[in-house]
Amino acid sequence: MEQLFSDGILNTPSSFIREILKVTQDEDMISFAGGLPNPISFPSKELKESTNRVILDFENKVFQYATTEGYEPLRKYIAKRYEEKYHLDFSKEDILITTGSQQALDLLGKILINKGDSLAVECPGYLGAIQAFSMYQPKFIGIDLKEDGLDTDMLESSLKQSNVKLMYTVPNFQNPTGITYSFEKRTKICEILSHHNTILVEDDPYGDLRFSGKDLPYIGAGKLPNSVLLGSISKIITPGFRLGWICTKNKDIMKQLIIAKQASDLHSNIFCQYVIYDYLTHNDVSQHIDKIKKLYKEQSIAMQKAIQMYFPKDIIYTTPQGGMFMWATLPDKQSSLSLFQRAAKHKVAFVPGDPFYTNKKNVPTFRLNYTNSDTDTIFEGIKRIAQVI
Amino acid sequence: MEQLFSDGILNTPSSFIREILKVTQDEDMISFAGGLPNPISFPSKELKESTNRVILDFENKVFQYATTEGYEPLRKYIAKRYEEKYHLDFSKEDILITTGSQQALDLLGKILINKGDSLAVECPGYLGAIQAFSMYQPKFIGIDLKEDGLDTDMLESSLKQSNVKLMYTVPNFQNPTGITYSFEKRTKICEILSHHNTILVEDDPYGDLRFSGKDLPYIGAGKLPNSVLLGSISKIITPGFRLGWICTKNKDIMKQLIIAKQASDLHSNIFCQYVIYDYLTHNDVSQHIDKIKKLYKEQSIAMQKAIQMYFPKDIIYTTPQGGMFMWATLPDKQSSLSLFQRAAKHKVAFVPGDPFYTNKKNVPTFRLNYTNSDTDTIFEGIKRIAQVI
Repeated sequence: MEQLFSDGILNTPSSFIREILKVTQDEDMISFAGGLPNPISFPSKELKESTNRVILDFENKVFQYATTEGYEPLRKYIAKRYEEKYHLDFSKEDILITTGSQQALDLLGKILINKGDSLAVECPGYLGAIQAFSMYQPKFIGIDLKEDGLDTDMLESSLKQSNVKLMYTVPNFQNPTGITYSFEKRTKICEILSHHNTILVEDDPYGDLRFSGKDLPYIGAGKLPNSVLLGSISKIITPGFRLGWICTKNKDIMKQLIIAKQASDLHSNIFCQYVIYDYLTHNDVSQHIDKIKKLYKEQSIAMQKAIQMYFPKDIIYTTPQGGMFMWATLPDKQSSLSLFQRAAKHKVAFVPGDPFYTNKKNVPTFRLNYTNSDTDTIFEGIKRIAQVI
Repeated sequence: MEQLFSDGILNTPSSFIREILKVTQDEDMISFAGGLPNPISFPSKELKESTNRVILDFENKVFQYATTEGYEPLRKYIAKRYEEKYHLDFSKEDILITTGSQQALDLLGKILINKGDSLAVECPGYLGAIQAFSMYQPKFIGIDLKEDGLDTDMLESSLKQSNVKLMYTVPNFQNPTGITYSFEKRTKICEILSHHNTILVEDDPYGDLRFSGKDLPYIGAGKLPNSVLLGSISKIITPGFRLGWICTKNKDIMKQLIIAKQASDLHSNIFCQYVIYDYLTHNDVSQHIDKIKKLYKEQSIAMQKAIQMYFPKDIIYTTPQGGMFMWATLPDKQSSLSLFQRAAKHKVAFVPGDPFYTNKKNVPTFRLNYTNSDTDTIFEGIKRIAQVI
């Protein structure tokens, strides 16, 4: 019988994390597996006020079809915020509202990738991006990630060897490792890319959640002509609204993104765009973000302390300056997948490293999320993992 | 220089309607061009109550990440509604919530279409579907649409000639023509398709808006194994929330759709899924829909009367039994695109037929929307068109 399904979907892995989440429904399971923000980051009361206000203020407009590009005041707000925080001269025309950052990845895949095109990803890298891009059947080129960002020698030689269409990075508090690119690495990568047509995608869902160290300029945003920056409200207000954005000053890319967005879902939820804009303009957002950062800092420190207390000393781990994740490495090439299976029986879960790699299997690394467990739970969970190591 | 963009996006037309809508921003322009529901269909007060109630009742859950499949009670409700109205035995496992019906089209394209696969569409057919599928570079096979549905002889011979992967239909109050498939045509098409593996997509955004005649069973839903049914809240509650769904009892198709949905936007807006479920279970929805149908019936009758009064007698037009559109045909192969340009100068707009065809240009047909103008405006607008004919 002829093949029913497309080559693209058959090339797309199911999300390993979403599979794990089903296993971790168990009430007494401690889970460091998800990437869920702590509910403290949801300003419920204020969002409720905003829903009421926008219905009162704008009536039918919040329920009608809307433009593909997104709600204009929200796009202006986002542009202005980049100007204030990073001195980037984005205007509303450079911003497209998307149905979460995940859709931004899908749209980039849609407009850029032909089957077999080379695409550089961090190794390890965000599995949602690997999943989204896989649909378009690229050839993934994994570039090793060091403590301070991509291995630039490897990047340089990869770009020379292949015509790399797109490079995907998470420069701040990377998913899955929690590492942050140093200023020097950012400068060096920008310099390397300036000699190529490769489109640099900087995905920055966690950028606002820096709880130590100083904000750094983006790698390419505002500097490279083929530069795309992704943002999201998921980690600072609510992921439930599915609202993110793509920024680029490249008019050709923006034009094609808008067509792809029309074809994909016409436009993003306009009601929630009004609500978020209202929320942003009626509340002290910095104060709200400070609250989240304070909590995540405490939780990340708790996890580091727990690891120091319970894990064998030969387990290496990262020390994040923000965001939601830590990354641990077992000694002697042990498999984290096997550890995961044993840990699950002891009622604790994490994400084994395998799905974050496009070119490796049975890796010794694993991801730990600290944002959605209190400190007692963090200590208990790390203790349980230690018992099965 | 090497081509920057994918073959898929370069094969995807920009939405002609969205281009037209920009032209029709003019205050004194009468527009029959859009496909906007009348704001009467937005139960603002009740939706406001529901937003407050779900935040009170479910707190953080409405703001957190959620399952890809969609909010379970809403999926159960949709399944039950099909059972009650059409005696279809869908269960929640057969329902996937999508970011509007437009996303359902994109997901179907993603999982089914390889470049060059044959895909049958109504001729004329819904341009949003043509746009969504174009991304995946199919070979479109246009099947002529008659007053009572597809030309079944043409369908039969097309299915024999090519291996048609997918057939897309809008059986009720079709977009753009407003026609409804007769019971006989539905039965005949189902019989023809039962001899092929072709996947039948029945897109039914307007099904609840029948203002004359009797509800008819679907063509293939509940009967054909390769059958997919699409629904939406856009035309009966609000398009602003971007919520629709795909129903299929084909487990293989559903499994791939869920993977494609994960890769595309993780899940649809969970807050609005809670709100809609709350709205549906706390209000008399039938009464609400009756109000919309009453209005649309009046408006459709007004447009027919205006056409009888002002248009030359050799212009043919359809008489819809529901939905939002009428379809008119100019005599002697005149071009509706040329009429559109002249009409715009007289401050009235409609959609020329061209973008609804995958195989024809300079057609004499055009689409008229009657749901978003009051009866006086309808008479004035039709009069203006008549003046330039």
